[in-house]
Amino acid sequence: MTEWIEENYKEGLSFRLGLKKLLFREQSPYQKVEVFESSHHGRVLLNDGAFMLSERDERIYHEMMAHVPLSVHTNPRRVLIIGGGDGGTAREVLKHTKVEKCTLVEIDQLVVDACRKYIPQTATVFDDSRMNLVIGDGVSFVRDSREVFDIILIDSTDPNGAAEPLFGEEFYTNISHRLAMDGIVIAQGESPFYEADTQARLLQIANPHFDWVTMYNFTNMTYPGGLWSFLWASRGRHPLRDMHHVKVSGCTYYNSEIHWAAFALPEAQRQNLSKWTKI
Amino acid sequence: MTEWIEENYKEGLSFRLGLKKLLFREQSPYQKVEVFESSHHGRVLLNDGAFMLSERDERIYHEMMAHVPLSVHTNPRRVLIIGGGDGGTAREVLKHTKVEKCTLVEIDQLVVDACRKYIPQTATVFDDSRMNLVIGDGVSFVRDSREVFDIILIDSTDPNGAAEPLFGEEFYTNISHRLAMDGIVIAQGESPFYEADTQARLLQIANPHFDWVTMYNFTNMTYPGGLWSFLWASRGRHPLRDMHHVKVSGCTYYNSEIHWAAFALPEAQRQNLSKWTKI
Repeated sequence: MTEWIEENYKEGLSFRLGLKKLLFREQSPYQKVEVFESSHHGRVLLNDGAFMLSERDERIYHEMMAHVPLSVHTNPRRVLIIGGGDGGTAREVLKHTKVEKCTLVEIDQLVVDACRKYIPQTATVFDDSRMNLVIGDGVSFVRDSREVFDIILIDSTDPNGAAEPLFGEEFYTNISHRLAMDGIVIAQGESPFYEADTQARLLQIANPHFDWVTMYNFTNMTYPGGLWSFLWASRGRHPLRDMHHVKVSGCTYYNSEIHWAAFALPEAQRQNLSKWTKI
Repeated sequence: MTEWIEENYKEGLSFRLGLKKLLFREQSPYQKVEVFESSHHGRVLLNDGAFMLSERDERIYHEMMAHVPLSVHTNPRRVLIIGGGDGGTAREVLKHTKVEKCTLVEIDQLVVDACRKYIPQTATVFDDSRMNLVIGDGVSFVRDSREVFDIILIDSTDPNGAAEPLFGEEFYTNISHRLAMDGIVIAQGESPFYEADTQARLLQIANPHFDWVTMYNFTNMTYPGGLWSFLWASRGRHPLRDMHHVKVSGCTYYNSEIHWAAFALPEAQRQNLSKWTKI
């Protein structure tokens, strides 16, 4: 009889991996944080019962969040990550030698601690001297900070609970103040299939603040339905015309062709977003 | 307490949809055929416990199987489908008015009967006068037939049980005899993530018979991991350079940009297949 690690994404829609071993389970002020050893996918991190990452496929999400903007920006010295306490996005960011400082603002110390202990594949990046780890609220950070960043990556959970303001108007107004005049913002953008309304609303909110606004897609094995999106929002730099062929070592998913292909949206998604797309 | 429709893809890897109602369950000489009403995905067809299609997302698979080759071939008069007894692929094929005859060879009468009764969204196509439905073994058909086809679509289940020979050398030798000198073959190609070896073997088998051999990808919500592939194998006609912008009405996924994007392979898949790719 198999025991399971299960995500009930919506009532009546569930994904399960065989449970080999519970490694970590604690409740923080923000969420329940769990790390399991799974069948087929190595170690997995769940926040409040939703799959955040698995060792077997986490590179896909993290490569696509980091290398798409970092292959467009020619001088990405200052990078800000909101969320992403597992370290995977930061690890990919710091493959780019032009990055001088990567500030990561994670609200939940427990996520960082759990990953440092149980998922070194992503979390060893916190030992890099260019990392500036801030435990705090990303919403307050972008409101109160006076720093300016070349690239801002919003590596958030789903828009409920602690992450809800990260999908709001005030947040994007503040983000636009923290972004350099030729900067790029990327944000976790949910499922084009199951969350079409959320995607349209996110694009509508971002639209007034940027020159180029669209979404791009990739496939995450452990997210519901597989197909998933990032928001692209930039000033000056166009996601395709300004792409230069950066050679990033050791990628499992990203390459120059995938960069181009990711911006081709399925017809239903293209139609759903067309009113708020600038590309 | 939710009851579930469940596919155990591999031991310890499972996808579940809420069960609203069992509509049909019978055992044929080849497989167990089931139709359920599900939560979130409408009616679903399972063969031997594996999701074949759901009403909510079946258009993705069927559009990508049919419109990619039919947007490359300029005179696709004679189309052969092996498998595909639900009718979804045929429905998309017959949107192309140049198609004069669509022969569909399905081994299992029970699949056709179940879909005619419970999944008219795909199966009403069998009333089209251009349809030539043959209940029989696709392997024997391509060996014994003397007909020649412009496009052959191998719309099979996974390579075990009845469908196993459809992934074999003898089958592809016979397929190559049934294909016109400027024809295109497309075949269901499994998961690039979970079935990398199967993909490489399929490309190796197809390689000697065609001018252009590669895979292209799409995302199917109810297949494990989402990301899925089709084999492309053609004579003369190149999948990208010979693509003409056919306007296909009522598509939910396919469009010209998606056509191009589908041939961009994730880095790990590109490396896995590079030895047997001709493109």
